[in-house]
Amino acid sequence: MGLDSNTGLQLRSLIRKSGELEVSLAEVAIAEPAADEVIVRVEATPINPSDLGLLFGAGDMANAKASGTAQQPVITAPVPEAAMRAMAGRLDESMPVGNEGAGTVVKTGSSDAAKALLGKTVAMIGGAMYAQFRTMKVRDCLVLPAGATAADGASCFVNPLTSLGMVETMRREGHKALVHTAAASNLGQMLNKICIKDGVALVNIVRNAEQAALLRGIGAKYICDSTAPTFMEDLTQALVETGATLAFDAIGGGKLAGQILTCMEIAANKTAKVYSRYGSDVYKQVYIYGGLDTGPTVLNRAFGMTWGIGGWLLFPFLQKIGPADGARLRQRVVDELKTTFASHYTRVISLQETLQLQNIAIYNKRATGEKFLINPNKAG
Amino acid sequence: MGLDSNTGLQLRSLIRKSGELEVSLAEVAIAEPAADEVIVRVEATPINPSDLGLLFGAGDMANAKASGTAQQPVITAPVPEAAMRAMAGRLDESMPVGNEGAGTVVKTGSSDAAKALLGKTVAMIGGAMYAQFRTMKVRDCLVLPAGATAADGASCFVNPLTSLGMVETMRREGHKALVHTAAASNLGQMLNKICIKDGVALVNIVRNAEQAALLRGIGAKYICDSTAPTFMEDLTQALVETGATLAFDAIGGGKLAGQILTCMEIAANKTAKVYSRYGSDVYKQVYIYGGLDTGPTVLNRAFGMTWGIGGWLLFPFLQKIGPADGARLRQRVVDELKTTFASHYTRVISLQETLQLQNIAIYNKRATGEKFLINPNKAG
Repeated sequence: MGLDSNTGLQLRSLIRKSGELEVSLAEVAIAEPAADEVIVRVEATPINPSDLGLLFGAGDMANAKASGTAQQPVITAPVPEAAMRAMAGRLDESMPVGNEGAGTVVKTGSSDAAKALLGKTVAMIGGAMYAQFRTMKVRDCLVLPAGATAADGASCFVNPLTSLGMVETMRREGHKALVHTAAASNLGQMLNKICIKDGVALVNIVRNAEQAALLRGIGAKYICDSTAPTFMEDLTQALVETGATLAFDAIGGGKLAGQILTCMEIAANKTAKVYSRYGSDVYKQVYIYGGLDTGPTVLNRAFGMTWGIGGWLLFPFLQKIGPADGARLRQRVVDELKTTFASHYTRVISLQETLQLQNIAIYNKRATGEKFLINPNKAG
Repeated sequence: MGLDSNTGLQLRSLIRKSGELEVSLAEVAIAEPAADEVIVRVEATPINPSDLGLLFGAGDMANAKASGTAQQPVITAPVPEAAMRAMAGRLDESMPVGNEGAGTVVKTGSSDAAKALLGKTVAMIGGAMYAQFRTMKVRDCLVLPAGATAADGASCFVNPLTSLGMVETMRREGHKALVHTAAASNLGQMLNKICIKDGVALVNIVRNAEQAALLRGIGAKYICDSTAPTFMEDLTQALVETGATLAFDAIGGGKLAGQILTCMEIAANKTAKVYSRYGSDVYKQVYIYGGLDTGPTVLNRAFGMTWGIGGWLLFPFLQKIGPADGARLRQRVVDELKTTFASHYTRVISLQETLQLQNIAIYNKRATGEKFLINPNKAG
């Protein structure tokens, strides 16, 4: 154990004022750990949809080009002018990427708490995980249980806490069941496992029969295919049966969020006693937490006046519930790491392979069923 | 004083299962007042946008026809098949119309509180005001101050409490300034008077230069014309100056709600210290409280993840704040009836004139500056 070098590779994303995206591997100094810090050799870090936004920004990846060396490849891509305004905050700033990861503690600071972590496999969140080494505060490391590998713990935070956060939000905001879109995703599968375990009714909206079959295979009860001609009726029926009035939408664009509210309203009116020109008084909420469809959200507002749509993000949610409740959710993730919160990856790639055009073409599709894991210490 | 008859005319709106709207004047019995009730001769009741939805439903008024007699005219119109689903809750049910009004107490129940109202001019809310007489609970009557006519008090509730409710919502939800659309409306003018009096910054969004001039004339400071080529820049600048992060939108359809959020996000990012791929952490809210544009709401979501859009209605708001705070708002309306909350009408019409096609063509346009008052006891 220990460090052979005082530098390591770190993936960087840069958008220049000139309108060019550049993704590269920089050789960066490994910061010496302070007393309460450790250096972790990163061995597993997933490519989540939430990482892709920072990784490629508004770059037009269909026109990306590869250059550089085998050990330090470089990807460049044009950024369409119309999209540059949204990039204003990050121009000419080389940014590290990677929300979460796991690895082995190879060097520690002088405190007892830090020393106790030497050799341990830990999970981390905090950005800059697409790197060979990451210096972390002890308190931001989650020690994995015995027998768990870095790959087991690589996706310990974002998807597990997001799916737990959805159920927690449902309870806190007074709803009794959930709707979820892009429901066959890694996150969607976790959410099904949580809901089955906790006895929460969950309506899964998918986009094809394969996704429906996948969810049926893990025990999902309510599955609606948005491409079926009977989708609106199917969804309404599931909402009547479950009483779900809260949806989490990973898609964002198009008509789906509005369709969910419309079906919730129809379901609510099936039990309404008197006509109100303003629609039912049942509060209906859709939280958009992703943008698989980056097109506009189109709401026909055929769902009365008692509704809300908004953005939902994990970190503001965790801030809102506070550290004690956050720790309770994290502990559940550790306790059920190999069951409820197990992630499955289709490929493990090196940092260099992360910057190969044929790999980008696959993992940047954000397709259900395709999930890549980066091992930054795998040979390129 | 007293009642010459035990019946009176009441406006009714009916949508038949066959897909036909019928608006007519029914001769209905005047209910004898219970001990705690009074009979009010309705002398002034406004046509608010919120009444038009119930009055004509989804009827195609461009193809409306007149029939009946001079004293009891009848209007019929086809309801397009596509709109019939939204009407399901009211089919074949003849519905009275008219949210609010004012008039003279002409007969009372036996309680002292009821007797004390005899001859008084009172304002009322509760529906069925497009009628010659209305039996009301004493506690639902608001006695107007000496010198105030029924016309002065006819719009005592909906617009005054809605505009006060906007400012109250701003305070309760932690915002410091407001945005309002269709801002030259009767309600918008009231909101300007409240905000000027209370020192709240208000950004007014209007659709033409006349509306801008009207608001400037009553002292509005921030006015943005959504048809100006510089609209987005103008709005952003007003948002930077005011710090407004809450908007009330009467329009509903189209891109405006999303444009407001986009400009709020740009304004918030002008003061942001670090780049976040999820956008600013400043919470931005648009409440849709009307539907002047019944087309879909289109959100391009170029405003980060910290935002919300929802429906806003007066009655749920009043329920939420409770009776004590509701009474405080109502008292302010009475205190400032002839100043802040003065309404202006372009015409006073009878019940019969309400059912004349040439009048419907005017008041159903919901045009800023056109506001009709019905006097159900005016000769037809």
